[in-house]
Parts: sequence; C-alpha cells; structure tokens
Amino acid sequence: MKNNTGTSESLFLNDENICMATDLYQLTMVAGYFERGMNHKSTFELFVRCLPVRRSYLIAAGLEQVIYYLRNMRFTAEYLKYLKNLSIFKNVSREFFDYLKGFHFSGDVYAVPEGTVVFANEPIIRVTASMIEAQIIETYLLSMINYQTLIASKASRVVHAADGRGVIDFGTRRAHGPQAGVLAARACFIGGCVGTSNVLAAYELGIPPIGTIAHSWVMAYDDEYESFQDFNKVFPDNTILLIDTYDTIKGAKLATKIGKKLKGVRLDSGNITLLSKRVRKILDDAGLEQVKITASGDLNEYKISQMLAKGARIDSFGVGTEMVTSKDVPALGGVYKLVEQEIEEKLMPKMKFSKDKSTCPSKKQVYRFLDKKQLFKKDIIGLVDEEFDANELLLPVMKKGKLVCKVPTVQQIQKTAAKNISQLPEKLKDLDSTTEYSVTISKRLRQVREKTKKSKDS
Amino acid sequence: MKNNTGTSESLFLNDENICMATDLYQLTMVAGYFERGMNHKSTFELFVRCLPVRRSYLIAAGLEQVIYYLRNMRFTAEYLKYLKNLSIFKNVSREFFDYLKGFHFSGDVYAVPEGTVVFANEPIIRVTASMIEAQIIETYLLSMINYQTLIASKASRVVHAADGRGVIDFGTRRAHGPQAGVLAARACFIGGCVGTSNVLAAYELGIPPIGTIAHSWVMAYDDEYESFQDFNKVFPDNTILLIDTYDTIKGAKLATKIGKKLKGVRLDSGNITLLSKRVRKILDDAGLEQVKITASGDLNEYKISQMLAKGARIDSFGVGTEMVTSKDVPALGGVYKLVEQEIEEKLMPKMKFSKDKSTCPSKKQVYRFLDKKQLFKKDIIGLVDEEFDANELLLPVMKKGKLVCKVPTVQQIQKTAAKNISQLPEKLKDLDSTTEYSVTISKRLRQVREKTKKSKDS
Repeated sequence: MKNNTGTSESLFLNDENICMATDLYQLTMVAGYFERGMNHKSTFELFVRCLPVRRSYLIAAGLEQVIYYLRNMRFTAEYLKYLKNLSIFKNVSREFFDYLKGFHFSGDVYAVPEGTVVFANEPIIRVTASMIEAQIIETYLLSMINYQTLIASKASRVVHAADGRGVIDFGTRRAHGPQAGVLAARACFIGGCVGTSNVLAAYELGIPPIGTIAHSWVMAYDDEYESFQDFNKVFPDNTILLIDTYDTIKGAKLATKIGKKLKGVRLDSGNITLLSKRVRKILDDAGLEQVKITASGDLNEYKISQMLAKGARIDSFGVGTEMVTSKDVPALGGVYKLVEQEIEEKLMPKMKFSKDKSTCPSKKQVYRFLDKKQLFKKDIIGLVDEEFDANELLLPVMKKGKLVCKVPTVQQIQKTAAKNISQLPEKLKDLDSTTEYSVTISKRLRQVREKTKKSKDS
Repeated sequence: MKNNTGTSESLFLNDENICMATDLYQLTMVAGYFERGMNHKSTFELFVRCLPVRRSYLIAAGLEQVIYYLRNMRFTAEYLKYLKNLSIFKNVSREFFDYLKGFHFSGDVYAVPEGTVVFANEPIIRVTASMIEAQIIETYLLSMINYQTLIASKASRVVHAADGRGVIDFGTRRAHGPQAGVLAARACFIGGCVGTSNVLAAYELGIPPIGTIAHSWVMAYDDEYESFQDFNKVFPDNTILLIDTYDTIKGAKLATKIGKKLKGVRLDSGNITLLSKRVRKILDDAGLEQVKITASGDLNEYKISQMLAKGARIDSFGVGTEMVTSKDVPALGGVYKLVEQEIEEKLMPKMKFSKDKSTCPSKKQVYRFLDKKQLFKKDIIGLVDEEFDANELLLPVMKKGKLVCKVPTVQQIQKTAAKNISQLPEKLKDLDSTTEYSVTISKRLRQVREKTKKSKDS
C-alpha cells in the first residue's frame, strides 16, 4: 500500500503494471498449475454465450489492444515482490516467482479480424499456449474485447438509425473513466461513426476530431450574438454554433446574422424534431441553405430513428452517454473457456456442464456461408480441420508469441465493419429485429461434444 | 496518425497524454477565450442535475484522481505540434500555443470529501480559476467523478442489501476496459466492499485482493476431487473451492473430503438460494460448520436481497458486472457549469436557461443540517458566505494550484462513506426508496437567481 502519505494516485495503466490488471484467481491458479506440474498445452476460446437483448449481431473489436498486451506483458520486480508477500502465496515456491520473472506470452492466437460481424457462441479469439500462459491473460482479454465489442455493436445500431447522416462520438465525459473514453471513441469509429470529440483518440488513431463550443462559451458573454461573432472571428471556417443556451429560435436568428461564414448550428435541448424544422426554415429564409444542423442531447438509435421518421431536419448527430455506455445493454458477457488440453501428446476436449453455462469442447473454427449476392447466409461452428465451401472467420494472429498478421488501422477496420454490415441480411439490422441468424454446430463437433459429455457422465 | 505501420497501440493514459484526454471543444473554446481576451476569473461547479432512477443518494468519489490530473496536466511539444496542425486551429495565433506550453492549473478548488453522501444539484466540486484553466479541465473531471460516484453509489446499495455479509468486487472482466476495472475496484471499496479481485487496485490502494479458482482449474483435471486436492496442497490456508463445474451437490460432497482445511466453497450457477441451503447442510453434516459459502454469478442488490429474504445460507457475495457497470443505471449525468465570472472586479452570476437544463448562478456551498441523533435532516444550497448552524460540505482542496488538504487513503474514505450512510435516514436506504431527502435553495441564492434571470430577460 503506497497511498497513505497524502499523495494522489493516477490509476493509469502502463507497460509495467498491466501484469497486475487481472483477477487474483488467475495468479493463484497459475501458481497452482506451476506447483502441481499441470502446465499442459491448452486452448481457450473467448466468445459470447448469447446475444444481449435488442442485439441481433455483434461487431468484434478490441483485438489490437489485446495484441499489445500479449506482446508487452511482463512481471517487473516491484510487482513480484508485492505478490510474493501476499499471505495467500506463502506456500508457493520461489521457483514460481522466478518463472513469472521470465514470463512472456509465447503462444498461438487465432482471432476474428476486428470489424467482423459475429454471433453468439462463435469464438472471437482462440489461444493455444501452456496452461499458465493461456490462463493468466484471461481477465485483460475479456475486459478489452467485451467493452470494445459492446460499443462497436451499439455504435453500428446508432449509425444505422442515422440513415446516412454522420454520427459523432461525444461520450467521453460519461464513459467509465478516461481510458474508457478513448476505447469508446475507437469502438464507435469502428461501428461507423465519422468522428469523435476525444482528442487523444483522434491523435492516437487518426479519427477526425470534432467540436466547437459548449454553453459556457455563450454564457461567458453578456450578449449571445457577441459570443457568436467572437467565435466566428477565431474560427471563421468552423463556425458551428450552439444555439439553445437561452432560446433556440432566438439563437437561430442571431446565428444567421453571421452570414455565409456560418457553417452549422447545434441543437441540444427541447423538442429537437420540431425545433430542427423551425431552425431549418430560419436558416433557409436567410439564404443559408448550406448551413448544417447538428443535434445532440442524450440521443440513441431509437430517438434518432423516431426523429427522422417525424421529418426532423438534422444533418448529423452527436451521441454521447447512450453510445459509450451502451446504456440499454451496458455489459457484454463474453467468457473465456478452456476447450482442449494436450496431455501426453493426446488431445483432450474439455467442457463445462454448469446449469445454463455449459460449453462446447475442442478447438473450433467459424465457417461463414455466403449466398449468391454475397450476403451472409449461415454460419457453422465446427472443428478446425473441417472443410466447407465457406469463409473461415478465425485467422492466425500470433504464432509462438510472434505477430504473424499485419495489424490493420482503425480506418481499415471501419471499412471491414461497413462491408460486413452491407453483407448482413436487412432484417438483422432492424433496431427491434427478432430475426435470428442461423448458427449451427457441425456434425463432427456435435459428436465430440456428446463423447466428451459421456466420458464425464460415466 | 501514428498507427498505420502494423504496430499496435496500448491506448493507455499517462502523464504526457492526459492533456489530450478531453473533448475538442474545450480546446477550441479556450483558444477562443485566449484570442478574444476573455480569460476572466471564472467559477464552474460540477453537480448532478437529478438523481438517477432507483437512487436516493449518491456517494461522491473520484476526487483523488482529479487532484492528480490537476497537479500533473501539462501540454508537451508532441501534442502541441499535433494541435497546431489541426485545420480547425489554422487562424489561432502562435501565442496561444505558447500559452499552452506553459500551462499548469493554478486555480482554487473546493470539493465535497470523497465518501460524502450528496444529492441532486449539490456541487461536488467547485473550481475558481482563469476561464481557460477552469474550462479546459471539464471533460476529465466529469469522466472521473461521474464514473466513480456512479459505482460507489451502486456498491453502497449492494453492500446494504448484503446486510452485513461481505461483498467483493469481481467485475474487472466486464468493466469498460482495464482502467475502468481499477477505478471500479476503488469506487466499490469506497461504497463498502471488503475486497476486490483486481490485483492492480489491491496493489495501488491497499484493498484486500480476493480470489482462488475459476472453472478452468477444475476442468484442467480429469477428476474434480483431484483438482480440489491439488489446490489445497498449494493453498492449504485459502482453500475456497468452486463447486458448480459439473454438479453443485456432488461438488459440495467432494469438497467436504478436504476436511478441516477447507475454508470455503463458491456457488456460481443454478438456484443459488436452494443450493446454498443444501450445501450448508452437506457441510454441516460433515462437521464443517466453519466453512463459508460464497455466491457469485450476475448478482445485484435486488437478487441478493431476495436470496437473503428466502433464507439463503450465504456468507459473502462476489459481485461483478452489475456493480462495476451499475447495470440498471450505467451512467451518471454529472455536469460542469459556469456559475460566476469576475469582470473588472465585479462578480457576475452566470446561468443557463435551456429547457429542462437551466442552472443556478453564483458560487455555492452546501449546508447540511443534522438532527439530535446526528442523522442528516436537510440540506440547504446557499451562497458561500451565508451562515447556518450546519456543516459545510465543500472544503478547500487546492489554492492557487497547490494542494491544501491531506488526500485521504481509500480506507479513510471508506470510513467516511460508512459514517455518512449511518447518518442517512433509514428510509433513504431502501432499495426502492421513494423518499426524497430535503434539499432546498437558500433565500439569498433564490434572490440572486431571480435577479440574474431578470437581467437576461430584459
């Protein structure tokens, strides 16, 4: 415990401490495996058991940060000392901590490329490594994939509702802490957003940064129009004005006085559908047909869809809280399960039987079948060595701990996602879709499952 | 854009890049203030407009990380270069970026100590600084306070429902990214949890780390009992076994074979209330009355409350997803609003009139009145110089950018929160409380608000 001296802590993650960004039971288990000589070659798969309510597909995201973690996670002396001194480890040998000192991930990783549409029970990542290496990484993988996949999937719905209009991520202030804001910006962009207000995400990932003024700008002036004029003087080519601080209609009229240099106005409160029509008319009557209207203020896919259905005259949407927290479904229940072990050169399928939580054994591949129009037709989850006339979704990412694929940029990933969405049957894109995409288990995988189950029952 | 070379990015925050963990409009606005000579001394307040549904109080949390940010946020050359080159800043003078180069926060901060119970509209943080300094910090403050306050408040409900039994944070894997997992562990501890599975939070903050095994431990063995025995060999004093991998009742019977060295069992699936009674009996029949039962698996305050009402025999609860995402209310809508400016030595109260989003002007203080039993009786939000026979909640934290308070440890904060909760009227602690705590506005503040409104209307 360092924090008893009145100093303050950042609680940042970094290359040194990511080894600690895990659940204690990962460390007790790997200590146990080490001490009991149970470090067999093992395979784990990360997947989502069932799609959350109101989600008919997911967009896989977060792999790049997982790769970073796998390539960089080490145990430094400072943390090893702390762990060694925890009372729970008092019977664990010095050799285990020496092992951790030299730890680096040296396993094989297959994964669905980021931006790919996935469904329930389809492995998103498959890790084959020594039991210790495969186990110890679980928590970090889950926290990264669960969150980014959740948000990319939510953003995809919002973008779909906006029906061609731009959606901008405005969510950082309501994201679950500063890092979540950056991760959300990335995932929202993958899901189809055109930009973000998050400057760090813009810098790190080349996402267009977007934003002009808040209410405080207008409130800092005695006179609303003076505040508009002043902003225009400093940002003549980016004069997008927030016009609802006092009265939206009055604000719109004042904004028109800026003239042709006005680029856009933003509505953030009130009946935005109604106001957008009135503001559009005010702008058009002033000969400012080119001026865009942006809407913001607790928007989500349903509100956007309803606003557009009612004829709202909005050109782009700033979406925050609802998108970056995936407010209607704020967690994705991805899990990471042991599916196979190699013991004395024999592959042993592994499965769990817990009520409602049973798993499917063996190393798996997802086979995606397309129809003649290149639309997704059905998926079969099968064993890795099956042969189907279909695309294999899981591709090699790391071999023996080395990267064996080119990590795509987030711009490329956004394109992958857009292409995937374009191949998705229309019905699945409905906000309240009840259509279920066909995902079945191959005959051979079914046989392995039955056999594994029987061997355990007997 | 750095990321087009196949390298992978961590998306960590650090001392260098926290300046960028903000919304673009903060930077455009401060550039505007700089260019237009609008850098007056200003006061902003951070508060929550209304309590979320099913919340009758909040526990303030996150201040320590805000202090860290305020003391350490600087603009380094790398980021200034990026900003300068953004097209939106093309008309902004070189002097502004020189100003940012020397930027450090030199303002005054008052805040409600972490762990304090707060209600709607009560300022949690009050910042007085130059307009630029006070504005530029908004996004980071909001993201930190919104999330930790949200989670401390949720955890407090879960802890209340557990009625004296220990609650442990198991949420990292479902938190919104790895940093959110650490922040959640901190906030859950403030809210009354007894420990966390998050090893980094344990290390950084001295929170007890808790955890033993997952299903993969049991599945790694052919024989369930052998897996139990092996764990006991390595962790003889911490043998808490997960018994639901195949069949909870069989698992419980196998666990009893460990004998007196068994410390606890964990149930993670099925009808936990029923199973807990049967498992308790199995343990007791084996003479293992001292063995504790822990429950986990998508628990929340309502489920815990129901389980206990039905006589579940559970000694502690591991709570994850629902607590660290505050699943029923996954975002707190804290805002940060300009309330006053000092222009030519005159204090100008500031307020916003937007529909449903109007604000209250002037620097404020929260006055908390206690009854004879030291229970919270009512709060009055008033001007800072009013005199009431009540406790003032906002205390000095920084003066001219220097820390003027001792930053409490998270253990001290947990005690503050527990004391606050003990002073809260019982009715407010009900999970479905509809009681509203009395928070009113002082006569003098009401007068200032009316006067400010009139001056704007005229």
